[in-house]
Amino acid sequence: MTIKLHGLVAATHTPFDADGQLNLTAVEKQAGHLLGSGVNTVFICGSTGESHSLTVEERLALARRWCEVARGTDLRVVVHVGSNCLADARALAAHSQSLGVAAIAALAPSYFKPKSLDVLVACCADVAAAAPGTPFYYYDIPPMTGVQLSMPDFLSAAAERIPTLTGIKFSNPDLMAYQRCLRSHGGRFDMPWGMDEYLLAALAVGGQGGVGSSYNFAAPVYLRMMAAFAKGDLTTARAEQYRSVEVIDLLAGFGYMGAAKAVMGFLGVDVGPPRLPNTSLAPDQHARLRAGLERIGFFEWSRPLVSHAS
Amino acid sequence: MTIKLHGLVAATHTPFDADGQLNLTAVEKQAGHLLGSGVNTVFICGSTGESHSLTVEERLALARRWCEVARGTDLRVVVHVGSNCLADARALAAHSQSLGVAAIAALAPSYFKPKSLDVLVACCADVAAAAPGTPFYYYDIPPMTGVQLSMPDFLSAAAERIPTLTGIKFSNPDLMAYQRCLRSHGGRFDMPWGMDEYLLAALAVGGQGGVGSSYNFAAPVYLRMMAAFAKGDLTTARAEQYRSVEVIDLLAGFGYMGAAKAVMGFLGVDVGPPRLPNTSLAPDQHARLRAGLERIGFFEWSRPLVSHAS
Amino acid sequence: MTIKLHGLVAATHTPFDADGQLNLTAVEKQAGHLLGSGVNTVFICGSTGESHSLTVEERLALARRWCEVARGTDLRVVVHVGSNCLADARALAAHSQSLGVAAIAALAPSYFKPKSLDVLVACCADVAAAAPGTPFYYYDIPPMTGVQLSMPDFLSAAAERIPTLTGIKFSNPDLMAYQRCLRSHGGRFDMPWGMDEYLLAALAVGGQGGVGSSYNFAAPVYLRMMAAFAKGDLTTARAEQYRSVEVIDLLAGFGYMGAAKAVMGFLGVDVGPPRLPNTSLAPDQHARLRAGLERIGFFEWSRPLVSHAS
Amino acid sequence: MTIKLHGLVAATHTPFDADGQLNLTAVEKQAGHLLGSGVNTVFICGSTGESHSLTVEERLALARRWCEVARGTDLRVVVHVGSNCLADARALAAHSQSLGVAAIAALAPSYFKPKSLDVLVACCADVAAAAPGTPFYYYDIPPMTGVQLSMPDFLSAAAERIPTLTGIKFSNPDLMAYQRCLRSHGGRFDMPWGMDEYLLAALAVGGQGGVGSSYNFAAPVYLRMMAAFAKGDLTTARAEQYRSVEVIDLLAGFGYMGAAKAVMGFLGVDVGPPRLPNTSLAPDQHARLRAGLERIGFFEWSRPLVSHAS
Repeated sequence: MTIKLHGLVAATHTPFDADGQLNLTAVEKQAGHLLGSGVNTVFICGSTGESHSLTVEERLALARRWCEVARGTDLRVVVHVGSNCLADARALAAHSQSLGVAAIAALAPSYFKPKSLDVLVACCADVAAAAPGTPFYYYDIPPMTGVQLSMPDFLSAAAERIPTLTGIKFSNPDLMAYQRCLRSHGGRFDMPWGMDEYLLAALAVGGQGGVGSSYNFAAPVYLRMMAAFAKGDLTTARAEQYRSVEVIDLLAGFGYMGAAKAVMGFLGVDVGPPRLPNTSLAPDQHARLRAGLERIGFFEWSRPLVSHAS
Repeated sequence: MTIKLHGLVAATHTPFDADGQLNLTAVEKQAGHLLGSGVNTVFICGSTGESHSLTVEERLALARRWCEVARGTDLRVVVHVGSNCLADARALAAHSQSLGVAAIAALAPSYFKPKSLDVLVACCADVAAAAPGTPFYYYDIPPMTGVQLSMPDFLSAAAERIPTLTGIKFSNPDLMAYQRCLRSHGGRFDMPWGMDEYLLAALAVGGQGGVGSSYNFAAPVYLRMMAAFAKGDLTTARAEQYRSVEVIDLLAGFGYMGAAKAVMGFLGVDVGPPRLPNTSLAPDQHARLRAGLERIGFFEWSRPLVSHAS
Repeated sequence: MTIKLHGLVAATHTPFDADGQLNLTAVEKQAGHLLGSGVNTVFICGSTGESHSLTVEERLALARRWCEVARGTDLRVVVHVGSNCLADARALAAHSQSLGVAAIAALAPSYFKPKSLDVLVACCADVAAAAPGTPFYYYDIPPMTGVQLSMPDFLSAAAERIPTLTGIKFSNPDLMAYQRCLRSHGGRFDMPWGMDEYLLAALAVGGQGGVGSSYNFAAPVYLRMMAAFAKGDLTTARAEQYRSVEVIDLLAGFGYMGAAKAVMGFLGVDVGPPRLPNTSLAPDQHARLRAGLERIGFFEWSRPLVSHAS
Repeated sequence: MTIKLHGLVAATHTPFDADGQLNLTAVEKQAGHLLGSGVNTVFICGSTGESHSLTVEERLALARRWCEVARGTDLRVVVHVGSNCLADARALAAHSQSLGVAAIAALAPSYFKPKSLDVLVACCADVAAAAPGTPFYYYDIPPMTGVQLSMPDFLSAAAERIPTLTGIKFSNPDLMAYQRCLRSHGGRFDMPWGMDEYLLAALAVGGQGGVGSSYNFAAPVYLRMMAAFAKGDLTTARAEQYRSVEVIDLLAGFGYMGAAKAVMGFLGVDVGPPRLPNTSLAPDQHARLRAGLERIGFFEWSRPLVSHAS
């Protein structure tokens, strides 16, 4: 049951059609694009996947479709099953296990927030127990959930209570806590980093990879960064990381979710607009976004290396 | 389609059995208890109703059951249909309309937060449009959602875009915004107040009633308060309001949700424990809670007047 | 040493000249204006007084000047002495006592925040001890300081450790905590309310008066409100309170501090512009502010009753 | 007027005696300890220096003393002059210039917070103009001030309005903004990093040094880390960084400020206890802190290399 989310894991978009209906036909194209970009693991139905804007049925259908598409390929599928409603999360977890996914993950309930570490562990244990044969990641993302609990303490408290606990998807800027988690329990927990815009910082302190949304459209940039970092060429690594900063900063100016989905369209992978409360770009914004991307050279940088595409 | 939520509206608990399963058999008892206490309107599946911890199917079933129980009685049923997933909210809204409920309400998505008033109005309009013949309340509760937008501006922006907009369930301590909403559009919006512990303050500035959880177990206190206030007897009104402060403060010390559900059990209305991430009381806490309630005289105060019970 | 801050207490502006220098000549006019408006207590060097933007020497000089001006009149002077630097606060407290002020007040240090109630009490005790013969108020204003501690618990912890503790200036919207403080220790603490825009709400639950900035320029509105409230005429009381809401809302749109100081100028009491980081109004904003005030009838409402002016 | 704060800059403690009075006799020992540890720049009267708990006279005296001690040594003195009161900050800035300090720095007013970037720049320009011949750093520390404005935008807005602007002391975990600032204006701004516990992360993305409190007592650890990083030996660099994590985590458990000052005492540099609202350690905490430091090997790691000490 061992898994490591090293390298790049794309937190995929959920594809909708123009009417906002789930568009399962896009999954195959998403998968092909990622494999062609050098990414072989997907994290589906997470924040980028607008999980909170999906019905349970849609989440089940999307997980099923990704597993079908992945069959016979190198693609590993990790499914985010977290929900404010733990009954839903349990159902999603059990279904994921039946699909044979590589791992599941769950964030904390965030309307009612766990008032202590103990309650957070109880919530995670409840979900993880519904998929007892599947590796479980806690997904820590305090800027979205408002749940701010110590992750080193979480590992200590959860290690025994959650047999399938494998690590934490760490979407939390606290690199001190991150270092402590990396070294916790002899380093046995897998700690994929969640802030794409400074993945290089996480690598420096010992991180091995990341889960993020920009790996959908800019994986080649990060792959070159990681290769340069591995060779000790920090000048190149910083330059590549800075390209990611430039594109993320540009997208954020338009509303990140809508802009990121638009970029996918520019790359030939139509995932449609986001659902409310995320907003889509107006036509003039589309044009300005494309112009901005051209100005920073995005369409050059983001081209995959031939070896991956072949 | 006019409705006013004046007087007391109980934000009811969702009843579970000891295993945490939905226990629809308790609804009849809840309804009888409330009618016997002088409360004739319920707000179901709200925060007190743990809506975020319920599956959509459970919310549908609970709404159906309340409407069955209410049939032939004086009880009015308002259904909270809000959800992070607007598709779910629309389905709940349409179902509520088919049941003929008195009104629906929805809070804002709170994982992804509407980034502007315009987006919030778009979200509400989307939900309200699924029940075009049913009065719609926006449910503003910034301490839970983190969505902090101006409610007077909301009314201005939403008045034309949401034909069924009837008012706001105002669970927001900002009594300046509350006054402005009360006077907005010539006073046509209904503004049930959501902070039970200072309902008297809202009445003073012009409020006409409240929606809250403590009306499940302490309605007689508030009814006496409102009667005293109406007669200009502020001394009595303050004393009754202070009883509510005492009981709410006591419950908060144990974790409000679990303690409030325990109090219902003490009153003979077993609604079970809450679901995670809310926590239930340990046996010794039960005993201490009961002792605390006795110490402050709760079991005397909370007794309904004979006229209601008959 | 008993004092009660009942009725209206004006949190006065610190007057500057056009160059931003302290303008002590304005104090006499401020005092005359307030006495003419029916206000006989001032709270100087508080938030409205921009205490954090003043040097210690300026605070000493301003306190001295107010006490000179007050001599031989009905005016009571309360001096805010709080500071991040407790050594400064102690010096200000001792100086205030030597001036024979009616009371002192201090807010919490807010750069380094007291990490517990115990530390907050220690800070207050330190300041209060420097003026052992002068009534001491804690000034609770969490929206500015970020210090969020339970005020009922503060009273319990501080009652024995601070012999001069007289009450709390309560600039905190939590009307449940307010009710508990009003009833704490048999009601012996004085609890002037700090949210002018819903003073009526505080009166309803038992408050006896308020300390605020809008009593500098709109005292007659509040005096009529309090008189109506005392007679049980809530319709008038609400209408007067709503006038305060309208003027405060108008000012907030321009930046409250700069706009409030501009209003003083319109009333013939030139207190100059605020200091940075508060901002003053541009000339066109001055004109628009005046037009707005005229539109809502401010210059009519705010006129003192003849009996006060004579 | 060019300066670069590369390498390690110690944010020094302000020494007090047992009665909490400023103890200027300790400065010489602090300076000697730092020079012996390989640190040749100090940042005085900052957060670690409890600037908000000092009177202006104390800040003037401390700056004077550090400059006297530094005379004839390699020590560079940077003085933090920021204050809620800009008049005080200007006086401190002018005095610093008269002392010939290497640079000054100022954080944002934080009781009244600058409501826009424009206001923040105006505040900084006001302070910087009082020392027109001295390099100026803005000190960004949102977790303490609550002032959250874009630092890349600050550089753009301030570059022309503040002729002495040299860089930002960046005590902000946002490594995306940090990268943008490093590259802003062709890389001309100096960006000392303020989170000691992940200085390695900042170095990885291009940082050149840091300003922090733990360089007072653990500089050798960081110097070894930086040397290893420069040689491409990340394993050693991470191990040394992790020692800093361990000691900072240990101190935080006792209240960081009081514990850090106690550690200085353990190293023979008595800087006394902190002032309220920071708290000092009780005797038993002292003993437990020392035991904890021994357990993690702190007294071994923190020993300076012979070459520095000679």
